[in-house]
Amino acid sequence: MERKILRTECPDSQGLIAKITGICFQHQLNIIRNTEYVDPISGQFYMRTELEGEFDDSRLLAELDAVLPVGSERSLESASKRKRVLVLVTKESHCLGDILMKVFDGSLQLDIVAVVGNYADLASLAERFHIPFHHVCHQQLSREAHEQALLQVIDRYAPDYLVLAKFMRILTPAFVRRFPQRIINIHHSFLPAFVGAKPYLQAFERGVKIIGATAHFVNDALDEGPIIEQMVTRVDHNYAAQDMAKAGRDVEKSALSKALQLLQEDRVFVHGNKTVLL
Amino acid sequence: MERKILRTECPDSQGLIAKITGICFQHQLNIIRNTEYVDPISGQFYMRTELEGEFDDSRLLAELDAVLPVGSERSLESASKRKRVLVLVTKESHCLGDILMKVFDGSLQLDIVAVVGNYADLASLAERFHIPFHHVCHQQLSREAHEQALLQVIDRYAPDYLVLAKFMRILTPAFVRRFPQRIINIHHSFLPAFVGAKPYLQAFERGVKIIGATAHFVNDALDEGPIIEQMVTRVDHNYAAQDMAKAGRDVEKSALSKALQLLQEDRVFVHGNKTVLL
Amino acid sequence: MERKILRTECPDSQGLIAKITGICFQHQLNIIRNTEYVDPISGQFYMRTELEGEFDDSRLLAELDAVLPVGSERSLESASKRKRVLVLVTKESHCLGDILMKVFDGSLQLDIVAVVGNYADLASLAERFHIPFHHVCHQQLSREAHEQALLQVIDRYAPDYLVLAKFMRILTPAFVRRFPQRIINIHHSFLPAFVGAKPYLQAFERGVKIIGATAHFVNDALDEGPIIEQMVTRVDHNYAAQDMAKAGRDVEKSALSKALQLLQEDRVFVHGNKTVLL
Amino acid sequence: MERKILRTECPDSQGLIAKITGICFQHQLNIIRNTEYVDPISGQFYMRTELEGEFDDSRLLAELDAVLPVGSERSLESASKRKRVLVLVTKESHCLGDILMKVFDGSLQLDIVAVVGNYADLASLAERFHIPFHHVCHQQLSREAHEQALLQVIDRYAPDYLVLAKFMRILTPAFVRRFPQRIINIHHSFLPAFVGAKPYLQAFERGVKIIGATAHFVNDALDEGPIIEQMVTRVDHNYAAQDMAKAGRDVEKSALSKALQLLQEDRVFVHGNKTVLL
Repeated sequence: MERKILRTECPDSQGLIAKITGICFQHQLNIIRNTEYVDPISGQFYMRTELEGEFDDSRLLAELDAVLPVGSERSLESASKRKRVLVLVTKESHCLGDILMKVFDGSLQLDIVAVVGNYADLASLAERFHIPFHHVCHQQLSREAHEQALLQVIDRYAPDYLVLAKFMRILTPAFVRRFPQRIINIHHSFLPAFVGAKPYLQAFERGVKIIGATAHFVNDALDEGPIIEQMVTRVDHNYAAQDMAKAGRDVEKSALSKALQLLQEDRVFVHGNKTVLL
Repeated sequence: MERKILRTECPDSQGLIAKITGICFQHQLNIIRNTEYVDPISGQFYMRTELEGEFDDSRLLAELDAVLPVGSERSLESASKRKRVLVLVTKESHCLGDILMKVFDGSLQLDIVAVVGNYADLASLAERFHIPFHHVCHQQLSREAHEQALLQVIDRYAPDYLVLAKFMRILTPAFVRRFPQRIINIHHSFLPAFVGAKPYLQAFERGVKIIGATAHFVNDALDEGPIIEQMVTRVDHNYAAQDMAKAGRDVEKSALSKALQLLQEDRVFVHGNKTVLL
Repeated sequence: MERKILRTECPDSQGLIAKITGICFQHQLNIIRNTEYVDPISGQFYMRTELEGEFDDSRLLAELDAVLPVGSERSLESASKRKRVLVLVTKESHCLGDILMKVFDGSLQLDIVAVVGNYADLASLAERFHIPFHHVCHQQLSREAHEQALLQVIDRYAPDYLVLAKFMRILTPAFVRRFPQRIINIHHSFLPAFVGAKPYLQAFERGVKIIGATAHFVNDALDEGPIIEQMVTRVDHNYAAQDMAKAGRDVEKSALSKALQLLQEDRVFVHGNKTVLL
Repeated sequence: MERKILRTECPDSQGLIAKITGICFQHQLNIIRNTEYVDPISGQFYMRTELEGEFDDSRLLAELDAVLPVGSERSLESASKRKRVLVLVTKESHCLGDILMKVFDGSLQLDIVAVVGNYADLASLAERFHIPFHHVCHQQLSREAHEQALLQVIDRYAPDYLVLAKFMRILTPAFVRRFPQRIINIHHSFLPAFVGAKPYLQAFERGVKIIGATAHFVNDALDEGPIIEQMVTRVDHNYAAQDMAKAGRDVEKSALSKALQLLQEDRVFVHGNKTVLL
């Protein structure tokens, strides 16, 4: 008995759920959990089906392909397959630390294959958890040359996802295009409020009563990619900008860890510039 | 084109989703939204299917009955059918007021058929919204006699649900059994903390930092029925018991209104002493 | 025995708390609650003192003036004095309704002196609560002429505060300057996200996972005034723009009511473009 | 220039704030932040004053003692003095891990002097952060004998606080009395709901929609001590008991860390069985 996740994404048409679950039934697979969404504007269909039983993958997929409309995407993966995650950092440790602790205690069931920093500050932290750390310094390098150096390290590990855990560098469109829907950033504001640099200083100057953090996919435009998770916490007039930054750490790390858990469980679908979480 | 809600509840067996959605497909019905849950311990299956199209109700239900296991319950109702709700009150107005305002502005699409109070304090409020108010005084009556008087009023309106919107009387098991899964209470604590009388005083004396409210079905045991919705809000040492009560009003009314919305949309299934919200 | 609120605002200097509370002590006044804040950047001092006893107002204020630095502002008001609030509306009822209900049940201890609408839709709602309603139509009037018509109604009531409870008109700087720190707006987004029109549509298009509402003072720049209160609620991919609008109503009304309660209790100080809530 | 925290606790009497801040003023000390609370029922007065300047501690305290009522307690400590914290654990790592990470990144400015476990599972985690770990096994020991063994280790470190970071042992009254208001526990429920063992299983069986965690002082009665901080998170019918436990880890660790931060900043006063957080 195995457990697998079937993900289906296609233009909507009548009978899709019946056809897909019908094929699963013919394969004598148990549906543990089935969640779907049809976007009412675009008519795009998304479904995540958690299945249990004895799988004949190639026959199952072939039968699905025979009934799914043109332009469909589907995948079938073992529920226990651990994603390979490479974490990019600068100097702040709280997001990396939370991921490391959650992998340590089993809350996050994925593999941190390496940590790469443009500073070396977090080398010792990664090494305490027996994760290889690579210092790829950006100084005296053009943006493109630095990204080439990063890619040489990254490609060695063939990660499923790159996680920017307070990586304070802006990536070029060319770099981002290499990893479509595979780069996750944690932005330290409740986007789209306070795009760009120093969001806590912006929040302090605006006098907001709530601050937040946003985990999102990275695309070409700064801080504009599909949002996966957002969390917030209250502040008041007693919080200076650095107090907001400190209070924000807990929501930053929680939002990022939650996004990673959703990705690990194959729950995140990208629909235009949004996510559908099934 | 109509929109209807199909609710199915039965012991789980392989292929249920395929069979049900297959029949819907044969009827050329569009699935707008489908949510299901299988309880892993009891193996009970719950599904809510929002359908659109031309309905042949009796044929559809007959075909479903032919494939569903013994012991199944299913229902098919128009999504636009407004539930008939009768509200029972004592003296506090915030929950009744919120329901009246939400029906007034269309946030809650149900019908308040009458308000019944054991005091007359809220008569003028109900009447401002053109809702019949009945004063059924409990004084000098036994509990049973008072409930008989209540039933005479209630039965006149044939409500789908009785809502105890700060109705400060305990109902007898005999009364409760007349309306299985049809009486909703708002309890002014985060159950199961502070069961029984004066929960805000209990909360104050315990020195909690968060207070809450619980909307739940009423069953025989006091404050023990299936929970539909809970909400909380922060308090601190500056809150006296009456400040907690005041702060709690917003979460009480929001939790109760949310529960009513879930019921209006046919999303609430009762599973043992719990609810499944689909 | 009376209860009064002493508010002090001045440049910080050593011994301010000692001097102010010393004078209160000499007047044999009890301090029920004292909260203060010094802005570390500007060095501005704010203090709210809740006092109980027999007051000799003019002598108390004169003695305070003798010790306070140049440029101080102070006020002494009865804690039980009800603020006069005039509410401006357009067509949506939930914020007005919540204020009416909270005044009705005593949660908000202020006086709604009138409701003014640029449409007549909410006349019946105001009248149900015995509040005068004025329909001041904006059609076929210049913005200035419409504001003149509004002012003629407003001035009749001499309100302490104007509350824009989903008043969907932009006010001119000239109008705003007439009521410095006395106009409160509820904006239906988590400012500064989604400034301007149709914030829920903007939120829907951005795919946010949390929506919010902001109660703020109105100044010259649209949606830029000092924030008094913000509240948020979670949404997901199932929420269309109109579902977000509906879900947002509860946080809009709660944030606005909370702001009014803070104003009623003389807790709101304006410091530059921010508020200090004591 | 130094910064110190003056804490005062005494029966209320007129002029206390004036007297205390007056003495501070005579010492030419700046008040950075002053917060106070008078319990309206007992009439007990609590004040925390954050002072900056040149301190003559003994003279300052002597002058305060001369004006404070009989039965007063006051203390004056450097704001930068790091509390000595000893952490007791069993097998679960998330609370210990969060404390270690927050000390590592400076979010918590206190010293973890040692970690003591009744199992050895977390030895390697403590050692990665260069904190001494002691395995004090409880097996084949009476409760009293085990506590004696614990005390031998604890006393070596002279900690200010003992933190039970998922220490799954019940302490005897004799042990607790050794550390009055100095033992902090994290209970994995929203107390007083689900006192005792297996709160997540209890929460699952009750079908709650929100779970929580409570950081509290330990006193003689199980889970009955003064509450310092509580946090909550939403769950739904999809959460099995173990999913609730996993979801609860984030609020457990956040609530405990927040309580430690409040203690580090000398903000926690105990008033009967409650806390006052200034």
